[in-house]
Amino acid sequence: MNDTASDAHLRETRISSEAVFDGRLLHVRRDQVRLPGGDLALREHIVHPGAAMVVPILDDGRLVVERQFRYPLDRVMVEFPAGKLDAGEPSLACAVRELAEETGYRAAEWAYAGVLHNAIAYCNEGIHVWFARGLTPGAQGLDHGELLDVETMSADTLMAMAQRGELTDAKTLIGLVRPHSQCPAVAL
Amino acid sequence: MNDTASDAHLRETRISSEAVFDGRLLHVRRDQVRLPGGDLALREHIVHPGAAMVVPILDDGRLVVERQFRYPLDRVMVEFPAGKLDAGEPSLACAVRELAEETGYRAAEWAYAGVLHNAIAYCNEGIHVWFARGLTPGAQGLDHGELLDVETMSADTLMAMAQRGELTDAKTLIGLVRPHSQCPAVAL
Repeated sequence: MNDTASDAHLRETRISSEAVFDGRLLHVRRDQVRLPGGDLALREHIVHPGAAMVVPILDDGRLVVERQFRYPLDRVMVEFPAGKLDAGEPSLACAVRELAEETGYRAAEWAYAGVLHNAIAYCNEGIHVWFARGLTPGAQGLDHGELLDVETMSADTLMAMAQRGELTDAKTLIGLVRPHSQCPAVAL
Repeated sequence: MNDTASDAHLRETRISSEAVFDGRLLHVRRDQVRLPGGDLALREHIVHPGAAMVVPILDDGRLVVERQFRYPLDRVMVEFPAGKLDAGEPSLACAVRELAEETGYRAAEWAYAGVLHNAIAYCNEGIHVWFARGLTPGAQGLDHGELLDVETMSADTLMAMAQRGELTDAKTLIGLVRPHSQCPAVAL
């Protein structure tokens, strides 16, 4: 939500910022901030380039999902295709690229559903959500060391998995319930 | 989703693990792992205690939300009350505590909606979602330096804000669409 003048009593102001971990994947900063009341505080946060997620909808209505091992959780997760934006990359270009690389599918129609923020307490990541239709299968182009299974399931099956606690990925849950018919289509 | 024997071709195995940043809020590790094919890779990830979110439902159907400045995004966000689990704390105890501290409300009825994983690429955080009913107002008990506005809005208003891109917090979007009538009630 955009700030308004009435948010001044909530706003924190940066005084200084320090890179405390600069890894291959994670970039962590520790900032000193001034609170609205004047006190000082520390804020540790991750700087993230943003990401794009694709909800791929086959002509028969089934959805394309992935099964992928997620190391931080030590388990295989069911999720929609997604990936990080390259530097300066528009989210649609990222969505097209990730869909092709991870699943092999190319889409004729794209519609934008908006952005979600998944870890607002400690990361600036925004995930742009795209619906893809008019899918045709093709060759995957996985990164070295990237392993995943591609499957197709009905939305009802995925909703039932969510109800049973077998689908818990936040971005995927949101992609499942967002009505794609209300999203504006765009030309590639 | 629980792993099955068929997931062995996706599973990575830890070889070593190193703390690379140990802050007040963020605890970052860098692990060496063996990929299913035998190659080695590095995995940077955040170790998080988990969290609880509360969807507080007033007797007239309106929902209690917060407006809070989120430093990583440099903006005020609309969100349901939530907070991190203390060490060993059950998620319901955390939900009861965070609701009272942040909003002042106490609830007579609680129902569990399940867990969501919000940052599976780099963090093991799980957010347990609770519905709270039978609310009575009381005194807030905010932490030092914690500032937020408490507001009440209808679900329709919040859904319209989501449609306009004014509500983008992933956990809150999921709390909005999860039908609370299907969640099992529990006794305190």
